[in-house]
Amino acid sequence: MPAKPLLNQLVESFLCLPGVGKKSAQRMAFHLLDKNRDGAIQLSKLLKESMQQIGNCRRCRDYTESDECAICRSDRRDESLLCVVESPSDVVAIESTAGFNGKFFVLLGQLSPLDGIGPDEIGIPLLAEILAEGSVSEVIVATSSTIEGEATAHYIGQLANRCSAKSIKVTRLAQGVPVGGELGYLDQSTLALSIANRNSLDF
Amino acid sequence: MPAKPLLNQLVESFLCLPGVGKKSAQRMAFHLLDKNRDGAIQLSKLLKESMQQIGNCRRCRDYTESDECAICRSDRRDESLLCVVESPSDVVAIESTAGFNGKFFVLLGQLSPLDGIGPDEIGIPLLAEILAEGSVSEVIVATSSTIEGEATAHYIGQLANRCSAKSIKVTRLAQGVPVGGELGYLDQSTLALSIANRNSLDF
Repeated sequence: MPAKPLLNQLVESFLCLPGVGKKSAQRMAFHLLDKNRDGAIQLSKLLKESMQQIGNCRRCRDYTESDECAICRSDRRDESLLCVVESPSDVVAIESTAGFNGKFFVLLGQLSPLDGIGPDEIGIPLLAEILAEGSVSEVIVATSSTIEGEATAHYIGQLANRCSAKSIKVTRLAQGVPVGGELGYLDQSTLALSIANRNSLDF
Repeated sequence: MPAKPLLNQLVESFLCLPGVGKKSAQRMAFHLLDKNRDGAIQLSKLLKESMQQIGNCRRCRDYTESDECAICRSDRRDESLLCVVESPSDVVAIESTAGFNGKFFVLLGQLSPLDGIGPDEIGIPLLAEILAEGSVSEVIVATSSTIEGEATAHYIGQLANRCSAKSIKVTRLAQGVPVGGELGYLDQSTLALSIANRNSLDF
């Protein structure tokens, strides 16, 4: 049997992308062949380089092609504020708000004992080391608002109390009505929380 | 200024794919880094090979990495039936029906004099050569049902009459109600055509 045509192989290899099915894969292959071969060559080069060179920062575990990421190396970020997130994409989301000037720690997961994911798998020993250094005065635990995320947050809260000689403040992201959200479409739990945690209106 | 992080470059290079915006590009980059580095390396390899090796079949102008494509080389296809389409993706669409056993000719465009696309740009000289060989007895002109597509079809119809010593039958794809289509949602022109071209029901 002869080998599959290269075009078919290319279409199939696009299926590794999230949200891409047979039809979109075909459309991508034809689009690049018809109109953007240079872009495709560039994508090919960057895919290879990225997969080979991008690893995790030795300090915060975020993705980086260096030994330490740009945020950890920066001396313009507030070292006393540490935001703990689940994944590198959370770092990108928080950075895009430009409202946070501290440093990060990336768990690369969440505690899930049933799946065999314990403290070691989410980098807790490394986080404990950083907290023990004594420069962090507040930990913002920005894990998801799911059962695993809450359990992970609880665990990190206890860790912060244990690790450091001085007391570390532990906070969680505020929960409530999203900006632009309509109350009628909001779930009951969020609405209840937004009432319980209501803020005073200053004049 | 330091170079952009590799991750940002990767995200940007995904924007060359059709239907992929900033958010999907980010999702793709993180998905591959998190979960499928092997798939990404494979995609990188096939992208490079495809862009460098896939050219056009010298006979039918379809995409192929060989000199002549598999359909043109095949002796199990009916040489007397030639289907003329606008693009390689049309070949894939027609092949997927498994209802056509002839050969193809790919125009790689449609006549559009205002944009400087004349007969030479859509391979008409090559098509004329094939028709002059005398083995084709029917040309199915499967160009789009747009003004340019119809004009191209008309031009090819006249060409077929001129080129060959024997008479060549020229046909166009049937137009009408799509399978599973509801009449209420169909445009007037298609509905009118489907009445004009109605078929008798055999018992």
